[in-house]
Amino acid sequence: MHLRAKDENFVNRISASFKKQGVMQAIGGQLVKVEPGEVHIELPFSEKLTQQHGYIHAGILTTVVDSACGYAAWTLMDPEAEVLTIEYKVNFLLPAKGKDFLAVGHVVKPGRTITVCTGEVLVKNGSEYKTVAIMQATMMAISNK
Amino acid sequence: MHLRAKDENFVNRISASFKKQGVMQAIGGQLVKVEPGEVHIELPFSEKLTQQHGYIHAGILTTVVDSACGYAAWTLMDPEAEVLTIEYKVNFLLPAKGKDFLAVGHVVKPGRTITVCTGEVLVKNGSEYKTVAIMQATMMAISNK
Amino acid sequence: MHLRAKDENFVNRISASFKKQGVMQAIGGQLVKVEPGEVHIELPFSEKLTQQHGYIHAGILTTVVDSACGYAAWTLMDPEAEVLTIEYKVNFLLPAKGKDFLAVGHVVKPGRTITVCTGEVLVKNGSEYKTVAIMQATMMAISNK
Amino acid sequence: MHLRAKDENFVNRISASFKKQGVMQAIGGQLVKVEPGEVHIELPFSEKLTQQHGYIHAGILTTVVDSACGYAAWTLMDPEAEVLTIEYKVNFLLPAKGKDFLAVGHVVKPGRTITVCTGEVLVKNGSEYKTVAIMQATMMAISNK
Repeated sequence: MHLRAKDENFVNRISASFKKQGVMQAIGGQLVKVEPGEVHIELPFSEKLTQQHGYIHAGILTTVVDSACGYAAWTLMDPEAEVLTIEYKVNFLLPAKGKDFLAVGHVVKPGRTITVCTGEVLVKNGSEYKTVAIMQATMMAISNK
Repeated sequence: MHLRAKDENFVNRISASFKKQGVMQAIGGQLVKVEPGEVHIELPFSEKLTQQHGYIHAGILTTVVDSACGYAAWTLMDPEAEVLTIEYKVNFLLPAKGKDFLAVGHVVKPGRTITVCTGEVLVKNGSEYKTVAIMQATMMAISNK
Repeated sequence: MHLRAKDENFVNRISASFKKQGVMQAIGGQLVKVEPGEVHIELPFSEKLTQQHGYIHAGILTTVVDSACGYAAWTLMDPEAEVLTIEYKVNFLLPAKGKDFLAVGHVVKPGRTITVCTGEVLVKNGSEYKTVAIMQATMMAISNK
Repeated sequence: MHLRAKDENFVNRISASFKKQGVMQAIGGQLVKVEPGEVHIELPFSEKLTQQHGYIHAGILTTVVDSACGYAAWTLMDPEAEVLTIEYKVNFLLPAKGKDFLAVGHVVKPGRTITVCTGEVLVKNGSEYKTVAIMQATMMAISNK
């Protein structure tokens, strides 16, 4: 599916919004790719993000892939609309062992009100990426008019 | 359903594990209740936890309610087993506006391998609690033997 | 939460819609309770509904509890709106062994556009009910105007 | 990911199990492809399968894609194990309008106990396929030993 942004300024719009996410500064998330219907966020390992076994907590993986999916949906929405996460579901496939993580959000079905996304979190080991989590999410456009 | 812990020492076991979660120290989560099949975690608002509109990020709400559900499941497991989040689904009902949040995890169906939980995140406004998110989660016991 | 129907005629509206569901006639689902924010559907066992071990197929349990949740949401919507299932998640707690099943759908959070529901499927053994499946679902009001 | 079946006889094993699913005979589901980690089931439209607007009911779409995912998981399991659906989540992307449907189940992450799958239901309009529903599911191997 070829997806097109209605808003020429979508990269700036999303970068500005991302900077307002206090949590991304706190956890070290970095916005590394913004394309129509696809957004990537990198997350380096930190001991501040761990669960009891020393791996990244499932909820932190969810935080980055939720933002990746939400912004992927927002690339295709009217610039005046806000994007809201209605719900998501995440499966954890492997322990999140590693130093460098990448969250990828994709739009599967854009819509005027509801946009459905899938996402994944990958861990980079050398030149190899492994999927540690997959998400299926529902995003909503909220009009500000 | 009346639930019983097999392990007399489950409160200490869970408190010790909770202290090892680097993320809970970083975000300010506090373990406030540990009973058989039910665990509560409090989270005060912080600007370090916000999304672009200044509310707590969905993924941070998920982090605390995932830990509440995982530990609720773990109260009922063999003490030698570890608990692992297989998957969860979360619906967001209201914007997470407020100063004090409470995540509650419940066991709905305990099992030798698989335990199913439900959870919710409440926001406290004065003496009133409102549910801002609900979770349905699948936890797994991993034997260490 | 006390829920009120805006439409006095909601029971008739839902009964008429239920009769149009070809699948409910085919599988033997019966609408047994319609209250504001809550709908019950009974389903007797039939060999036409089974998976390979002779129990009711997970998808058939889902069919009845989806309709129970969708109609529960619809009790509270404007009478001109249609209700649409956006998504759901179901956990299966026990094998669906038994002769008589009851699907219950509840509204957890009504909304102008989005309504969040929880549901369950119970099996009746004598006078005892056991929960075999739980659902968390997102329903949407579609205006016909 | 290249997936291999441990059991040479997996196609026969799955075909035999499929024939025992009373619900597949009742709804007209046909097993059309069984490969390691991937199973396809076709479903023709029938008025017996409809919701109130005359389209296939969400629960029936779920029934076929659940079986496709469950059997996809089972292709890779030990032949003595049974496969059980622990849970699934389904998003509905488009109304299920059409005459011919195809459910596709894929293994995303095989495991000794837990296998994670994704699935979709496609509608065929002429030579074009459109995705009407997507599933993310957790399957479990149950030993019969």
